Amino acid sequence: MYHLNIGQPDIHTPPGFWEAVRDNTPEVLAYGPSQGIPQLREAIRGYYQRDGIQLETDEILITTGGSEAVVFAMLATCDPGDEIVCFEPFYTNYNGFATIAGVKLVPITSEVEAGFHLPGRKVIEDKVTDRTRAVLICNPNNPTGTVLRSEELDMLGEVVRDNELYLLADEVYRDFTFDGRTHRSVLELPGLEDRTVVMDSISKRFSSCGARLGDIVTRNAELMAGIVKFAQARLCPPTLAQYGAAAIYGSLSREYFAGMVSTYQSRRDVLMEELADEEGVFFLKPEGAFYATIRIPVEDSDVFASWMLSDFSVNGETTMVAPAAGFYATPGLGKDEIRIAYVLNEDSMRKALAILKEGLRRFEG
Amino acid sequence: MYHLNIGQPDIHTPPGFWEAVRDNTPEVLAYGPSQGIPQLREAIRGYYQRDGIQLETDEILITTGGSEAVVFAMLATCDPGDEIVCFEPFYTNYNGFATIAGVKLVPITSEVEAGFHLPGRKVIEDKVTDRTRAVLICNPNNPTGTVLRSEELDMLGEVVRDNELYLLADEVYRDFTFDGRTHRSVLELPGLEDRTVVMDSISKRFSSCGARLGDIVTRNAELMAGIVKFAQARLCPPTLAQYGAAAIYGSLSREYFAGMVSTYQSRRDVLMEELADEEGVFFLKPEGAFYATIRIPVEDSDVFASWMLSDFSVNGETTMVAPAAGFYATPGLGKDEIRIAYVLNEDSMRKALAILKEGLRRFEG
Repeated sequence: MYHLNIGQPDIHTPPGFWEAVRDNTPEVLAYGPSQGIPQLREAIRGYYQRDGIQLETDEILITTGGSEAVVFAMLATCDPGDEIVCFEPFYTNYNGFATIAGVKLVPITSEVEAGFHLPGRKVIEDKVTDRTRAVLICNPNNPTGTVLRSEELDMLGEVVRDNELYLLADEVYRDFTFDGRTHRSVLELPGLEDRTVVMDSISKRFSSCGARLGDIVTRNAELMAGIVKFAQARLCPPTLAQYGAAAIYGSLSREYFAGMVSTYQSRRDVLMEELADEEGVFFLKPEGAFYATIRIPVEDSDVFASWMLSDFSVNGETTMVAPAAGFYATPGLGKDEIRIAYVLNEDSMRKALAILKEGLRRFEG
Repeated sequence: MYHLNIGQPDIHTPPGFWEAVRDNTPEVLAYGPSQGIPQLREAIRGYYQRDGIQLETDEILITTGGSEAVVFAMLATCDPGDEIVCFEPFYTNYNGFATIAGVKLVPITSEVEAGFHLPGRKVIEDKVTDRTRAVLICNPNNPTGTVLRSEELDMLGEVVRDNELYLLADEVYRDFTFDGRTHRSVLELPGLEDRTVVMDSISKRFSSCGARLGDIVTRNAELMAGIVKFAQARLCPPTLAQYGAAAIYGSLSREYFAGMVSTYQSRRDVLMEELADEEGVFFLKPEGAFYATIRIPVEDSDVFASWMLSDFSVNGETTMVAPAAGFYATPGLGKDEIRIAYVLNEDSMRKALAILKEGLRRFEG
């Protein structure tokens, strides 16, 4: 079974992470600070500084995974019943976080033909109501692999400024950009210091999904004060992994990131080689993260994905993909699309995609 | 500075916890199961079985601390705007969790003269409206140290049965009962299998507050299915500490718990010796957990606690206590009360309480 359906990287967690975990075994595993341990917050400040983004330590709060960062961002910017504009397809779990926060997600559809880049300003502002509090983006994008252009971010900046909204950016994949692209953070938008919130995680950056560590960044002190209150209610993020994360943030080189990006870019290239010219398959070259959302020649990709699992195999092997309908809020959309996570090595990727292609040729429906 | 203000135990985390953490360092720290790793769920099943409570593994879900267990319980039993009846004084963070879940807490006041035991059935049912979905208890209680009597639990069982509510029980301190008392879990209430939810944590049980591991238990399969959905949205609880927790659940003896209870009971006895006969001080003997809520002869315990910190010391030392107003939802209540957490060794407890007594004698207001 080849798992192209989940974003679980196969890259090894840096050994320095484990060394730091082993070296930090106090007699009493006490509550840590609600904002996270100082050395980790400081290490993240340094990480952003290397990319030219100046932050104060107080503008960074450690969360229990990127998941909690999204929940905190929603809770801090919205009252129950408020709305957040977002772009579909989007990371499915945003739905669960919105339910927890009592927030309504208002989707704007992006299109596979446009490489899932944003529609124009007017389309976005048409969705803004008196209950809208924020625009939510994921950049680089899960599930599409799209990296927003600098002008798109400027446009979003104007939208949130003119409509007095917040811009919430899930930048978990910010290190993963291909073909020489650099990622522009919403923290780099001039004059929007009070309106931007970044949600982040070490899960993919350091291949440590099970650590459950992320962070939330905002220069808006009032907003951060509200986030701190939610953080205090849950006492603290997990302590053990924080020592590991602080150690690797401090020790990893640019070469580490370059090597990781190169690995994923090569896999992306395998995806292009294997699928781009396949009859009935359509997608633009993914620009970052490690996902692609792909149109396939089927009526219902849910049925296709199930069929691949239960009724199809090549030499006893098959490939799991994620049907894309789950990434859309609008009913009926995404039924002819799948998401592929290219988290396997090149050899496995080729085998998995060959099986997928064979399945597409044989599937009837 | 003596910290009697926070529930951070000084007991050492069992070495077996750290050994298991050191022994479980996979190459890739991947996402674990959303319900928690099987060996930990199984170990918790065994823990309950030792106390005569039969559970299926599927009735246990691992959470990120007891905090998340409370949030999940509220989210799974309530819609936004619904109400939960609870008893004040109560653990302050319930307010934050209720805000997250969009739930309104409806307090019923318990009294220091009654040792903070429950009022009668009628008082409770008077607070039940058509928006009420649950009754929330903490047993043994933080901040009062009260252990509910078997008849009180029977009465609550009747209330939730007759009014079609859930009974949510924070049983984090279930191992901490004094003077030979045994704790009765809501899981032992006959015929209420579909209405009871237990929220639990290893923070105090294994002195591992920084692990951020708890669990939620319910035999109501439909309710658990809803909880699993929230659990899936946040992917998984922290992996590292789960191995530690599974190991100690499996290896700890009854003697471990007996020793821990004996330690806290001795500290409770020190509290009684030092404070019970003090002029103007009133409280009944705490029955469990490691807290007492105590009436003191001051007008505003907030002012008193601050004064102890900034304007009072004995030989350069002072004592921090928690003003009780923060544990009440009803404005104005608890101003002549403090909460003491007896989490220091006996010698430190005596010194801390001597300073507190001296402060009470000298304080004007």
